[in-house]
Amino acid sequence: MTSELPDMNLKAVGIVRNKVKQAPVPGYNWWGIVSEIVVESSLTEALDNLEEFSHITVLYWMHQVSATSELPLKVHPRGKQELPLVGRFATRSPNRPNPIGKATVRLLERQGNILRVEGLDAIDGTPVIDIKPYIPGYDSVTDAKVPPWVTNQ
Amino acid sequence: MTSELPDMNLKAVGIVRNKVKQAPVPGYNWWGIVSEIVVESSLTEALDNLEEFSHITVLYWMHQVSATSELPLKVHPRGKQELPLVGRFATRSPNRPNPIGKATVRLLERQGNILRVEGLDAIDGTPVIDIKPYIPGYDSVTDAKVPPWVTNQ
Repeated sequence: MTSELPDMNLKAVGIVRNKVKQAPVPGYNWWGIVSEIVVESSLTEALDNLEEFSHITVLYWMHQVSATSELPLKVHPRGKQELPLVGRFATRSPNRPNPIGKATVRLLERQGNILRVEGLDAIDGTPVIDIKPYIPGYDSVTDAKVPPWVTNQ
Repeated sequence: MTSELPDMNLKAVGIVRNKVKQAPVPGYNWWGIVSEIVVESSLTEALDNLEEFSHITVLYWMHQVSATSELPLKVHPRGKQELPLVGRFATRSPNRPNPIGKATVRLLERQGNILRVEGLDAIDGTPVIDIKPYIPGYDSVTDAKVPPWVTNQ
């Protein structure tokens, strides 16, 4: 499969700054955490009008997750042994073939090249690789179904 | 900023197969398009239980978008000259510093290493870099606001 594929190298467009300096325990409550996304200053103008959206989607590189191709393919959701062993792609485990996180967060404020957001589940120093506006209808689903082990504590 | 950052190289975990062989015009209606995501066979087991979700989020590499750091920072949404010039990060333009697309799609069926999905806005041959379950509440927002130029035709 790889023979026909391009090189795919990412560049950071910004970096996360917040008070969470180390990876917290699974299940950590990120909802009240305010972060700053400090965007590469040469890209400041590309942020114009983003403040007209209430929410944005942030893609980031989970740099503290060790990159390995030897990940077990099955995992207990949120590390809970009492939950069934499921496929890694059926979870939001940070340990995945490409350690990319995706978060939908409230945009509190933009000042120049700095975005202040609430609920971003990324630790201090995390490289940001893309920022997209959140568009209801395109990004949201009204009738989505999930299995019971997603919501079980 | 780059001095403290890790190398960020992606590997394809799968590839998109559908009838759309070339980049269509902006505004193309992808909603009825059925695609197959053919996942790297060594990762088949990591897809287990994904079929318990009605929707998934697919991250993909827009390989036909020319990678350049010389992108204009402002752009007319959807190429429409009559819409205001806005920051590139405030749009879903495929031309962005990292050409990563994000789509939330209905999962119609999983058979082994093949996912059949509806509405994936990626052309045939697109490398897939991550597959995540769509989880309402975490991935969705009920009170999101967007500016008028998003919905204006």
